[in-house]
Amino acid sequence: MAQEITAEIISIGDELLIGQTINTNAGWMGEQLALIGVRAKRVLTIGDDRTEILDALGSATCDVVLITGGLGPTKDDITKHTLCEFFGTRLVRNKEVEARIMAMFVRMGRDPRDILPVNLAQADLPENCTVLPNERGTASGMWFERDGRVYVSMPGVPYEMRSIMRTGVLPRLQERFRPPTIIHRTILTTGLGESMLAKRIADWEDSLAAEGIKLAYLPSPGIVKLRLSTYAEADGPAATERVDRKARELSVLIPELIYGEGEDRLQQVVGRLLKERGQTLSLAESCTGGYVSHLITSIPGSSAYFTGGVVSYHNAVKMEELGIPSDMLELNGAVSQPVVEQMASGVRTALRTDWSVAYSGVAGPDGGTPEKPVGTVWIAVAGPDGVRSKLVNFPGTRDLVIERSALAGLNMLRKRILEAQ
Amino acid sequence: MAQEITAEIISIGDELLIGQTINTNAGWMGEQLALIGVRAKRVLTIGDDRTEILDALGSATCDVVLITGGLGPTKDDITKHTLCEFFGTRLVRNKEVEARIMAMFVRMGRDPRDILPVNLAQADLPENCTVLPNERGTASGMWFERDGRVYVSMPGVPYEMRSIMRTGVLPRLQERFRPPTIIHRTILTTGLGESMLAKRIADWEDSLAAEGIKLAYLPSPGIVKLRLSTYAEADGPAATERVDRKARELSVLIPELIYGEGEDRLQQVVGRLLKERGQTLSLAESCTGGYVSHLITSIPGSSAYFTGGVVSYHNAVKMEELGIPSDMLELNGAVSQPVVEQMASGVRTALRTDWSVAYSGVAGPDGGTPEKPVGTVWIAVAGPDGVRSKLVNFPGTRDLVIERSALAGLNMLRKRILEAQ
Repeated sequence: MAQEITAEIISIGDELLIGQTINTNAGWMGEQLALIGVRAKRVLTIGDDRTEILDALGSATCDVVLITGGLGPTKDDITKHTLCEFFGTRLVRNKEVEARIMAMFVRMGRDPRDILPVNLAQADLPENCTVLPNERGTASGMWFERDGRVYVSMPGVPYEMRSIMRTGVLPRLQERFRPPTIIHRTILTTGLGESMLAKRIADWEDSLAAEGIKLAYLPSPGIVKLRLSTYAEADGPAATERVDRKARELSVLIPELIYGEGEDRLQQVVGRLLKERGQTLSLAESCTGGYVSHLITSIPGSSAYFTGGVVSYHNAVKMEELGIPSDMLELNGAVSQPVVEQMASGVRTALRTDWSVAYSGVAGPDGGTPEKPVGTVWIAVAGPDGVRSKLVNFPGTRDLVIERSALAGLNMLRKRILEAQ
Repeated sequence: MAQEITAEIISIGDELLIGQTINTNAGWMGEQLALIGVRAKRVLTIGDDRTEILDALGSATCDVVLITGGLGPTKDDITKHTLCEFFGTRLVRNKEVEARIMAMFVRMGRDPRDILPVNLAQADLPENCTVLPNERGTASGMWFERDGRVYVSMPGVPYEMRSIMRTGVLPRLQERFRPPTIIHRTILTTGLGESMLAKRIADWEDSLAAEGIKLAYLPSPGIVKLRLSTYAEADGPAATERVDRKARELSVLIPELIYGEGEDRLQQVVGRLLKERGQTLSLAESCTGGYVSHLITSIPGSSAYFTGGVVSYHNAVKMEELGIPSDMLELNGAVSQPVVEQMASGVRTALRTDWSVAYSGVAGPDGGTPEKPVGTVWIAVAGPDGVRSKLVNFPGTRDLVIERSALAGLNMLRKRILEAQ
C-alpha cells in the first residue's frame, strides 16, 4: 500500500478558545480530506497570538498543514504577518486581488472612493505564496511549500474556507500527493434510530468484512447516514463494483428507510420528485413555525414547485386562512387529527397545489398536558389521492422536536409521491 | 498582577477528526475556564492513538491539562491505559465506583447478574488519581498532579463531562490556583460590517488600553459582537465599573447599531419588546421563504406575540392572500417597493396584528437581472404609524442573503418599535 498522507489542522482565533464560536471548520476539513484519502491526524486550536502561531507552524510534522483564521482586516488578525515571519518573506500588494476586492465592494453598491485602506490591504499577500482566490470574501487563500510539506492558510469564515478548499486546496492536494484512492458511498436513512437500524441490518453488516469494506454509522437528529468505504488500490473498478453491490443489497433490505445518497438533503430529494412530475407543494405549519418552508426554500430553484405556505401560529389564522371551523378547534383542540387534516386540505385548496403537508403539535418547552405532552405532533399529507395523517412523539428540546417533525413530514410526503406513481 | 493561570484541552476521539462529531466540548470548557479566570491557551484534538496521546501529555506546558474522550467500555477506548503508562501507575478496582455503576444499571431496570464485565471494568481506575464521581455515566473523572501541573481526564459525552466539570473540576481548580477574576461584557451590533464599525468607533477603541480593557471583534453574518474584558485583580468593583463605563460610552456612540448583550439573539430582543408592549407581529415572506417565521418561533413563548405568517413564493399567493393587485405586480415586478409595502400592509390587515414585516427579493443563485441582481431585497415594516421600506443588497450565497435579510428586517422592526414609544 502507498504511504499514508497525513494532515494537521491549525485553527486560529481567540473566539474558538472561549466558546464564542464553535470550531465547525476542523471537522468539515477532516471529512473532506478523508474523501480524497488524506488522514487528518490532529487539530490544534490556538489564539491570535504570534508566539503560539509560530510554535504551531514550527512543530508541524504532517505532510499537509491547513491553517484557518486570523485573516480579517482588523488589528487582532495577525496570521498573515506571522506567516511572513515564519517563511522569511514580506507582503506585496497583489493587483489582481486588489481589483477583485474593489469589484466586490462596487457590486455591493459601495462608492469606489469610500473603500477603506484596511479593506484594500487584504490584497497585501506574502511574496512567495501561491494565491488561492476567494470568490466570497476579501481574504485570499495562501499556499506555501517547504521541506516537502504543504502549508495552506485560509480565512476562518466557514463558507469562504469551504469555497477555497473546494476550488483551490483539495484538487491541488490530490495533484501534489496522489493519495491512495478511497471509494466511498454514503447512504442516507430516516425513520429508525441507530441501534434499531444496526439490529435490522446486522447480517448485511457482517458480510462487509469479507469484501474489505468498512461501515460507519453517522447519526444526527432524525437521520442515520451509513458510510461504506474501501481502498481502491490498483483495482479501482473492482472496488467500486464491490461497494455498489453492497449498496444495492442494502436498498433491497431497507427501501422505505433510504431517502438519498451523499450530500442529499430530504428537502432536495422531495424537490426533485416534484420537479420530475411537474407537481406543486404548499405547507401549513403550526408548531414547526415556518421551519419546513425554510428547508424547502433553502434549495435553489424551489420556486419551480413550492407555491407558498401559511404559518398558522394562532387559531384565528387557522380558521380564516385555512378554513378550520371554530367548533372543530373547540371540540378537538388545535393539536388533533381532524384539525391537521383540515389544515392540509385547506392550504392545498387555497393555494391550488398538488400536494400539501401540515403540522400541528406541542414543540415545548411549555404547553404540554398529560394527554398531549411536549413532543406530540400531528402531521398530515394531502394529495391527489386524499389526505392521510400520522401522530408522532419526539423527545428532546424545542429545536429537536421541530427538526424531527419537519423530517418526518417530508419523508411522509416523499413516500406518498412515490406511491402515487 | 497575579500570574495568569493557563489551561490546555486535549480532545481525544477518531470521530472528531473526520467531522462525524463536532467538538463542542472544547469551546464550552474554554468558556467555563474563562469565567473562573483560567485562560484556555490551546485545544489539541487527536485520535484514539496511544502514541498521539502520550505525545500530547508529554508536551503539555500549561498549568491545567483537561482531557476528554476515550473512556468508553469498548476496545478502541484507550485513554485510561495510556494515562497509567504516562503516570507510571496501574489500574485497581475502585469498590465505591463499582457499587455506583451497579446501582446505575439496577435503576435502569437491569438484573445485577446481567451486568457485563466490560461495564464493571469502568471501575478499574489508576491507583494514584483522585476520582471525580460521574453521576450520569460509568466513566469517572480522574485528577492527577505532577510537577505542579494538574491533569484531569473526563468522558467525552457532553453532559457527563459538564457534570464532572461543574461539580468536580471547576471548584477544585479555583481552590488549587486561586486565579484572578476576569470581567467580561459582550455587546451585540448589527447593521455595519466589521471594518466600517472599527472605523466608526476607532477613538473609543483607542481609549480602552489606558483602562486595561481588551476589545475583540467577533463577526458572524450580519452581526458583529464586541467583547470587552479586563482583569478584576483585587479591585473587583472598580474593574466592573471601568467596563460598564466604557460600555455606556459605546451605547451613546452607536445606539442604533446595538441590539443586545451577551447571548441575546435579535429575535429574542424583538420578542421581548413586543411582549412588554402587549403587541403582536405577523410576517409576509417571499425570498426569505419562512426563515424569519422560523427565527421568531424558535423562541419559546413566541406565541404570545407572533400570530402567524404567509410565505408567498408565487405571485398568485401574493395576490390572493395579501391583496396585491395584479397590475401592481405587472408594472413593478414582485421585487419592488410598492409590492413589498402592500405585502406588509396586507398581512398586517389580514392577521390583525400591530406590526408586520415583509420581504421580497432575489436570494439567488439564479433569478438575478442587471437591474435587480442576486442579493437585491426590499424589506417593509408596517405598524401603527404606517408602512416604511428599505432596499438592501447583500453579497454571498443564497443562505447568506436570506440570513442577512432576515436580520436586517428584524432590526428595522426593532428600531420602529422603539421609535413608536
